Amino acid sequence: MDRHEKTPADFLITCVDHVITCDDTFQVFSPGAIAVHQGTIVAVGTPCELHQRYEAKETVTLSGHIVLPGLVNTHVHGAMSLFRGLADDLPLDRWLHEHIFPAESRHVQPDFVFLGTLLSCTEMLLGGTTCFCDGYFFEEAAAQAADLCGIRAVLGQGILDFPTPDAPDPKAVRHRIQAFLENFPRTSARLRPSLFCHAPYTCSPETLQWAKAVCTDRGMLFQIHVSETRWEVETIRSRYGTSPVAHLERLGILDDQTLCAHAVWIDDQEIHLLAETGACMAHCVESNLKLASGIAPIPAVLKAGIPVGLGTDGCASNNDLDLFSEMSLTARVHKAVTGNPTVCDARRVLLMATRMGAHAVGWGAATGSLEVGKKADMVALDMERAHLCPLYDPTSHVVYAARASDVRHVWVDGVPVVRDGVLKTVDVPNLLREVRKAAAVIAEGMFFR
Amino acid sequence: MDRHEKTPADFLITCVDHVITCDDTFQVFSPGAIAVHQGTIVAVGTPCELHQRYEAKETVTLSGHIVLPGLVNTHVHGAMSLFRGLADDLPLDRWLHEHIFPAESRHVQPDFVFLGTLLSCTEMLLGGTTCFCDGYFFEEAAAQAADLCGIRAVLGQGILDFPTPDAPDPKAVRHRIQAFLENFPRTSARLRPSLFCHAPYTCSPETLQWAKAVCTDRGMLFQIHVSETRWEVETIRSRYGTSPVAHLERLGILDDQTLCAHAVWIDDQEIHLLAETGACMAHCVESNLKLASGIAPIPAVLKAGIPVGLGTDGCASNNDLDLFSEMSLTARVHKAVTGNPTVCDARRVLLMATRMGAHAVGWGAATGSLEVGKKADMVALDMERAHLCPLYDPTSHVVYAARASDVRHVWVDGVPVVRDGVLKTVDVPNLLREVRKAAAVIAEGMFFR
Repeated sequence: MDRHEKTPADFLITCVDHVITCDDTFQVFSPGAIAVHQGTIVAVGTPCELHQRYEAKETVTLSGHIVLPGLVNTHVHGAMSLFRGLADDLPLDRWLHEHIFPAESRHVQPDFVFLGTLLSCTEMLLGGTTCFCDGYFFEEAAAQAADLCGIRAVLGQGILDFPTPDAPDPKAVRHRIQAFLENFPRTSARLRPSLFCHAPYTCSPETLQWAKAVCTDRGMLFQIHVSETRWEVETIRSRYGTSPVAHLERLGILDDQTLCAHAVWIDDQEIHLLAETGACMAHCVESNLKLASGIAPIPAVLKAGIPVGLGTDGCASNNDLDLFSEMSLTARVHKAVTGNPTVCDARRVLLMATRMGAHAVGWGAATGSLEVGKKADMVALDMERAHLCPLYDPTSHVVYAARASDVRHVWVDGVPVVRDGVLKTVDVPNLLREVRKAAAVIAEGMFFR
Repeated sequence: MDRHEKTPADFLITCVDHVITCDDTFQVFSPGAIAVHQGTIVAVGTPCELHQRYEAKETVTLSGHIVLPGLVNTHVHGAMSLFRGLADDLPLDRWLHEHIFPAESRHVQPDFVFLGTLLSCTEMLLGGTTCFCDGYFFEEAAAQAADLCGIRAVLGQGILDFPTPDAPDPKAVRHRIQAFLENFPRTSARLRPSLFCHAPYTCSPETLQWAKAVCTDRGMLFQIHVSETRWEVETIRSRYGTSPVAHLERLGILDDQTLCAHAVWIDDQEIHLLAETGACMAHCVESNLKLASGIAPIPAVLKAGIPVGLGTDGCASNNDLDLFSEMSLTARVHKAVTGNPTVCDARRVLLMATRMGAHAVGWGAATGSLEVGKKADMVALDMERAHLCPLYDPTSHVVYAARASDVRHVWVDGVPVVRDGVLKTVDVPNLLREVRKAAAVIAEGMFFR
């Protein structure tokens, strides 16, 4: 009989081979346990310690597993999963003007955004991503999809000075933003609105400053694509006489509530500006490689102390939403670029996919690590697989060997959204049928190679 | 009732959404079917056509699937899967001298090679690889493991002018090779012996020429690591006054029965020499990135007409044997390096992983494409997954979105070695237990970071 009275907990995850906390000191409990109450982590430690302290309504025994924080995808265009593999291996201008833009102008409506985002959330949850930061049009519909799936999200309403699917008249974009903010679902604390100015070359200084002011006023994340291509850098230089990052800094856009996606072509001065202002970065290595944009100088960015998360970008340029392959690639490619096999080590890369990413999208206080007081956003990887055997170092395995398909259980806010590899919140076979119907309409009339 | 008498077949795979043949004209049948008799493909075509022509003992209906040729891994050190994740993120010299070499000298024995190769074959078959080209020590034991698993293989016995686990006295290496060739199991036509000279800097000109002569004499593939690092290029230049490839060419080593692994640091003259001699290449992009070796100039190599296959290298530097991630990365990274999004397109990369790879390892007449007369080495991918939906182009999906875990069925020589994701030739849970026991011994006494 226990000498002390036990504290109640909703559930206890225990006998986990390795619990990787991703906390400040990168504690790993081998074996480990986690106690969760009312959606929040109340304890992380060894199984014996937690069994002595907690009386749990449910106990989940996970020997043969690694448990880590839910992954954070810091840059997604969820609805674009409906364009997955529609056009590859093309020059950027043909890809955009002959395929993506025509497809968007024909098909992007709230139903499209809802369906595409639902597909993306399904793929992300099944692959261990519990939080994502989105940017597209009709983002109220994206929010509804995220709400339904049970994922955590930042939903960024897209802004351009050109006609868009949900603001055909660019002059009306401020009304559109107002409507977005009014319509944004208030049903879930897991969802937060955001504004996403497309890029410095598609948004005027006035648009950028206005949108940033709205974000600051409402405590929202401001998102923008920055320096994705060399062409963009040249365009901004010829238009404003400075680099894209310096241009944003002059406009007062950069602070710790600003997320810069891509930032492939940034120089030392721009890295310094980002670090000084506290701005964050979303690194999208697979998309940047596939579109031949280039490779962001991540080792230098990390050295400067800039918070960097990982992002898949949209499925049209990836072609999946798999953060395990993003981790594997991020840990490898910068080694070859710098000629230094010690940069972007497994631990650093896992932090990018979890704690640093959560911080970058403004959810750092609630998710990104397994710590007391944070929401129980957790992933269990099944290690009983040939490609994960033997195991000498669990962090190495997560980054260099594990796959999205090794994800067996996922919790968001302590809710088991994925159990035994099955998503509980969505009827996946039915979803895939609906997606195929939509894809048939998209394919009709497209010019195929 | 049919008007013509039907031809008998052992089995018919039919109603496949897409059969990607990887033949000369890159035919894709949508829907498609394949008839197999006595381990050999006797017909590929539409389901209606094949149902009219063949009377099959068994019919396998695969709607919702893509069927493609079994993948070919052109560069593996199978036994090294026992060192998976043992040491990462280290400078090459510390990785080799403090971790890999000590572990090898302590542990590499026939039992070790058998167990590690069995683990590797298990991972490869489950991930759609039906043929691999290996290089290590005690390769008779590797051959036994490959035989047991039912995979197709080239087993390259390692040769160095330094003490090795199976030839502690380098002077005795020729006896060792003789013993290897005598002991090589003759039980299966799926297995072929080969010699693997480690590198131009670890093998003298005499050793290289002797080993190549043995290979030529017996019609065997000759394998060698070439120009993996800048250090190697400088070493060979200072020792022999020329580049590694030119050095090999001068020695008469290069012909269409020679496979050069890595070839990261090769210049235009070396590309010309490789093309002229008919030598083949194994491109190991994940390993080259992880060890910070560099990025081979594959678009130029392909343009020169050099047959290039994909290789994972050993698990100590990868850390898996997944050709799907190698395809995805090969198709992406060269786009960013060259700034050209049209290089290494999906079709070309899939050919590298199949037909070109089979040619490179000397198995081109028997495998690498789904064509009449070739062995029935085939993989069925289950497309009923969120990350593979929708589908506009099956080849794009295989390269940019599919994962090893999407492999559902695998046939080698027409034998169903993987069915419903389960390997029929190996007791996998028991294998993993044995591997963990071996790993515990390896871990004991190792210095961990």
